[in-house]
Amino acid sequence: MNKTITFLIVFSLFYSIGWSQKATPNEKEIEKKVTELLSKMTIEEKIGQMTNIAVTLFEIKGQPGVFDKAKLREAIQKYHVGSLQNIPNSGAPTQMKWREIMTSINNETNKTRLKIPILYGIDAIHGANYTAEGTLFPQEIGLAATFNTAITKKGAQISAYETRASSIPWVFSPDLDLPRSPSWSRIWESFGEDSYLTTQMGLAMVEGFEGNDVGSKYQVGTCLKHFIGYGSTTTGKDRTPSIIPERVLRQYDLPIYEAAIKAGAKSIMVSSGEINGTPVHASKELLTDLLKNELGFKGVVITDWKDIIYLHTRHKVAETNREAVKMAVIAGIDVSMVPDNYTFYDDLLDLVKKGEVPMSRIDDAVSRVLRMKMQLNLFNNNVADPKDYPKFASQEFIDEAYNAASESITLLKNKYNILPLDKSEKILVTGPTANSMKYLNGGWTYNWQGDLSDRFASNKMTILEAIQDKVGKEKVLYTAGTDLEKEDENEIQKAVALAKDASKIVLCLGEKNYTETPGDISSLYISSSQIKLALALSKLGKPIVLVLNEGRPRLISDFEDKMDAIVQCYLPGNEGGRALVDILYGDVNPSGRLPYNYPRYSNSLEKYNRKYTESLGEEEQNDDAKYEKSYNPQFEFGTGLSYTTFTYSNLKIDKLEINDSDSIRVTVDVKNTGTKAGKEAVLLYLTDLYASITPEVKALKRFEKISLMPNETKTVSFVLHPKDLQFVNNELKWVAEKGIFRIQISDLKQEFLLK
Amino acid sequence: MNKTITFLIVFSLFYSIGWSQKATPNEKEIEKKVTELLSKMTIEEKIGQMTNIAVTLFEIKGQPGVFDKAKLREAIQKYHVGSLQNIPNSGAPTQMKWREIMTSINNETNKTRLKIPILYGIDAIHGANYTAEGTLFPQEIGLAATFNTAITKKGAQISAYETRASSIPWVFSPDLDLPRSPSWSRIWESFGEDSYLTTQMGLAMVEGFEGNDVGSKYQVGTCLKHFIGYGSTTTGKDRTPSIIPERVLRQYDLPIYEAAIKAGAKSIMVSSGEINGTPVHASKELLTDLLKNELGFKGVVITDWKDIIYLHTRHKVAETNREAVKMAVIAGIDVSMVPDNYTFYDDLLDLVKKGEVPMSRIDDAVSRVLRMKMQLNLFNNNVADPKDYPKFASQEFIDEAYNAASESITLLKNKYNILPLDKSEKILVTGPTANSMKYLNGGWTYNWQGDLSDRFASNKMTILEAIQDKVGKEKVLYTAGTDLEKEDENEIQKAVALAKDASKIVLCLGEKNYTETPGDISSLYISSSQIKLALALSKLGKPIVLVLNEGRPRLISDFEDKMDAIVQCYLPGNEGGRALVDILYGDVNPSGRLPYNYPRYSNSLEKYNRKYTESLGEEEQNDDAKYEKSYNPQFEFGTGLSYTTFTYSNLKIDKLEINDSDSIRVTVDVKNTGTKAGKEAVLLYLTDLYASITPEVKALKRFEKISLMPNETKTVSFVLHPKDLQFVNNELKWVAEKGIFRIQISDLKQEFLLK
Repeated sequence: MNKTITFLIVFSLFYSIGWSQKATPNEKEIEKKVTELLSKMTIEEKIGQMTNIAVTLFEIKGQPGVFDKAKLREAIQKYHVGSLQNIPNSGAPTQMKWREIMTSINNETNKTRLKIPILYGIDAIHGANYTAEGTLFPQEIGLAATFNTAITKKGAQISAYETRASSIPWVFSPDLDLPRSPSWSRIWESFGEDSYLTTQMGLAMVEGFEGNDVGSKYQVGTCLKHFIGYGSTTTGKDRTPSIIPERVLRQYDLPIYEAAIKAGAKSIMVSSGEINGTPVHASKELLTDLLKNELGFKGVVITDWKDIIYLHTRHKVAETNREAVKMAVIAGIDVSMVPDNYTFYDDLLDLVKKGEVPMSRIDDAVSRVLRMKMQLNLFNNNVADPKDYPKFASQEFIDEAYNAASESITLLKNKYNILPLDKSEKILVTGPTANSMKYLNGGWTYNWQGDLSDRFASNKMTILEAIQDKVGKEKVLYTAGTDLEKEDENEIQKAVALAKDASKIVLCLGEKNYTETPGDISSLYISSSQIKLALALSKLGKPIVLVLNEGRPRLISDFEDKMDAIVQCYLPGNEGGRALVDILYGDVNPSGRLPYNYPRYSNSLEKYNRKYTESLGEEEQNDDAKYEKSYNPQFEFGTGLSYTTFTYSNLKIDKLEINDSDSIRVTVDVKNTGTKAGKEAVLLYLTDLYASITPEVKALKRFEKISLMPNETKTVSFVLHPKDLQFVNNELKWVAEKGIFRIQISDLKQEFLLK
Repeated sequence: MNKTITFLIVFSLFYSIGWSQKATPNEKEIEKKVTELLSKMTIEEKIGQMTNIAVTLFEIKGQPGVFDKAKLREAIQKYHVGSLQNIPNSGAPTQMKWREIMTSINNETNKTRLKIPILYGIDAIHGANYTAEGTLFPQEIGLAATFNTAITKKGAQISAYETRASSIPWVFSPDLDLPRSPSWSRIWESFGEDSYLTTQMGLAMVEGFEGNDVGSKYQVGTCLKHFIGYGSTTTGKDRTPSIIPERVLRQYDLPIYEAAIKAGAKSIMVSSGEINGTPVHASKELLTDLLKNELGFKGVVITDWKDIIYLHTRHKVAETNREAVKMAVIAGIDVSMVPDNYTFYDDLLDLVKKGEVPMSRIDDAVSRVLRMKMQLNLFNNNVADPKDYPKFASQEFIDEAYNAASESITLLKNKYNILPLDKSEKILVTGPTANSMKYLNGGWTYNWQGDLSDRFASNKMTILEAIQDKVGKEKVLYTAGTDLEKEDENEIQKAVALAKDASKIVLCLGEKNYTETPGDISSLYISSSQIKLALALSKLGKPIVLVLNEGRPRLISDFEDKMDAIVQCYLPGNEGGRALVDILYGDVNPSGRLPYNYPRYSNSLEKYNRKYTESLGEEEQNDDAKYEKSYNPQFEFGTGLSYTTFTYSNLKIDKLEINDSDSIRVTVDVKNTGTKAGKEAVLLYLTDLYASITPEVKALKRFEKISLMPNETKTVSFVLHPKDLQFVNNELKWVAEKGIFRIQISDLKQEFLLK
């Protein structure tokens, strides 16, 4: 049998059992159809495809959730709107309500000349959080803390399933922002401060959401956000300027997107911020030259909320809205999330008619939208039948959300092994986050700010409820102790009084639910009402377990030394209360690790991968004076304790000298030397001892989460590739420089030479 | 008479009465001599000229101030050292002691083959602060607050006079850093956060120090520092990385140096930090391409303390010290402040001998050193005779320092006109900075950290002493109230008890003396011991005047609302106590203005010239939620009250439309509408309403300080040039874009159009 015949047989086989079963049409077919369809479209129909509207525009004023059909008709018939987003002001619809909404939208598009289906997108960022009863996972920061890409991918698969079950084919997720200020209000929507961890987790999410057949009824198209540098604001406030030199952008931010794009991500949302004085929505260099040309991104580039309008009204780089539209479309925007009027449509139509925006740019944009609609198979499959989704909110899915939460929760401190708690002891549960679903879920839950969790998730367990459920109400004293913000000495005194009857105190502190600008803060310290409660309780001499339920690391240095145990649960979602309580009582062994440096003080915000000049030991400080240690976070990136102990040994590398094309294999033995089974995230750091760009003290290059029974040993193996030794130099090239590199796993170190 | 003859006559006249009287040799003569001298030098002699050593290297161990002559001889005879710096560990020498030191150095150089004099430099940054009894001015941040370039220039003239009187021809001043984090430990050494103000003040200092005859016995050579971006560290810690895109560097940082270089500055010190991953000491792009080639800087480029060594040990961009030396010299370093060994000399000699550093680079460096020595006239005039300096520390000079202090002190708040105080009332003076010369002067005073002020300036008046002197000791109760750091409730209670007998409280808070890394802080809040004292006193219901004596804006928002008046005196120097007290009692009318935004909270550090996205009014915030106002400093840049009132009117511009070559004249009437004479800094801000780089909300473009008697009106006139409308665009070009600009003076506004 010659090779050609073998190839044909194999190809046919593959085609018949694999390819042909895919719901997603093949690429060639799509490109042909896109070209055909585009050739039939009027200018108006094309510009409509570039227009994205929020469904709230169709709501009857004062009647949240009730649509004015005439307005919907106007959008689709008059303005040829191509995509919609968001939820009604009434909050997350049920599956059946979504089906109704999508059916009425579909009925309208079916009345149009070309019957192009609507592309509907929502912010399903931690499960199907915009469908009532959807399964809710920890927010991304918690997923990062699991250091478990399989769990993250599984979560995205479930989220895709339940979102498609709601007739929605498109999610504005994953968030790939790389936050540089810990006070930013969207830290919790990100995977934390490390570029490599974010890359791996982002990849897992894209794979989980899109699968290998994005047009199937179980997958959704992703929208990577927010391209690029959105999380790097100088002041930490949302949607304020970022300062990022190109070298830094290419080394830390760009690889995250590059990997997700390579994995097939269908769309990308643009950063609402500016970089070095240029709003990203107006940057042809970033959107066209870099993203579309250099990275070869073929998907849809969509604005964030109102961001073309804001080029005129906020950024003031455009003297009129019309100028803003021109600027953004020429920069490379394909779809404008206008989202509550038709100024974009009107202005762009005028610009195209007057030849100020070339038709080629419009055709490129519209092709991308049509391509995505075909990839998502919307021309055939646009409204979901709930009967096809028996696993929606099933126990199987809930268990996965629970697992994710339990692997995310991070034990930061455990003095005298005060944890786990004893189920027979009487405890005081207090603090403003102890009895709330809102705070466990955070923003983007049932609505934008996540205000509705206590209503929508009333069947789920808060921390207090989960404790009561586990040990019985008679073992649990409870009072809120304080409001999150309002100070009230009486409330504190109630908690102090109750504590007298308890053997231990579980103190639940944290933050309100928020996202975006409403989450802006001016001080990173946790609220003073909570500091006062903590200090008052600490005077009683009772052991205190501090549970942190917060989106970002609010400073606790005013009382940290008075806490006996500290558990960070981030925003663990609907199953988080149960997961936390299982950890508090030792039914689950914690295994999360911090995905950021938890700062000690407000003006000392170094990252773990700092430069040496930010991290001087006393011997390296100016010899002539002693002074405060510069680098001293409250808890460092990667911190995470367990109820068992793990011992690392036998760190080996297979070569002590390599050439620049060699890979290097690293192995290490990890033994569970304690008495409980446990999971351990094994982290590999690399240090380039000297480099022409000041090297980082260390940088995460690999990680793997393993499970070990008591006394069990596993050998963990990693392979580092030449690319892992590289950084971006001043000529903007990825290079590895000759010299010594150091590998570090736990406290073991091993050096090798790049010749 | 034809033109040629006229020219010759005028030229001869000028030559005979002007030029020929200058001590500085003319340029041609210098270049000739430099070439001659260079041609005679050995490699070793050349490298010696590039070597800068601290005199402390010559001190006998355990005997501060006592030199081991053999070590001095070794430096000059064996290593051919070209320049020295710093003071003995005993602290600032007297004029006579300096004469002795310079004489013994001179004796050594006279024994060398070529008799090249030593270039001696010191950190005379606020007067002759390294000579005992020198006249001490406010630190730069205070000079900036005067908004008076004439006072600043005068101060530099006096400083030059007294420094040359100490036989020192070279000062490491002015500091032109543009700090971006308010917690940086060298804010007070800078002119604050505005680029234009810093440029004008820097220029005044260079003109004052160097005059038009820098070789005369009354002038000194300057050293601009720290080129470039040193003040922009991300974390706010000293000598940590800066992130500055080139566009931003060119718009805000570079013009400051450009102006000072154009004014003739003789040398420049390099930033100890890194920009975007490249230590400035290793950057050929910054030191040679930008500074020497593009800006045409012909002077000496010197490292900061140990900074070549640190390329290896801290920045880790060089694998060995030898590699660091090669890197720095090739980058463009002319002189290495080694400063306490001869590794630079040894390594560079080896590098040159082996051809790894070209002789042309060495010759360029040495030429620059020799040129500067000739410009400073050191070959003729190297040791000063105190008899030639009758004005040293004279009343005339002291009065100038007093004037500078009194124009710098800034009244930030004056509720119910509680100030000025009544001389007949009994007051409590308290707080840790009330009775200290150290805190009034800050770092770089008599020694590096300024520890010795209380001894060296014991004949000067602290705040407490100046009050006692003015109103009599019987009117003044005093207790420290607290240490700067250590908390002691008993001390607070002493103050509370004393306060009962006082009608008002003058509460003096602030910071210890510091500079560089010893001044690093992790929290911008003023120390908690001081917060506790302020809160305890505020409960008494007595009016409190808060006096801030601090190098940077330490946060006071925990108690600011309980203070009735607030006076910022910065680090006003030896005459600052008197100046402050004259203001407190109304003998002087305050006229300082804040040269930075005084933040309210630790994680809200916006600058006054923020972008619109950092400064959203409620109408511009996301419509869907109400939240904390983003831009809300405690006191804004330019804040400064007076005991009289000024009314602005009649803001006029001479053209409503201009072309890009037109200048525009702006006039405004300022009237003293109060009852006291006063000085007023008139500030002109410009706003570019729309621009391709997101425009600043406003930017300072002109200022002038005027004096007005009650009822007097003056018309202030400014001319804006085309350059003032420009910014640096993404192609790194200075451009002005057509459109509307807005001028703002006080609260008056006027728009014009650039066609």
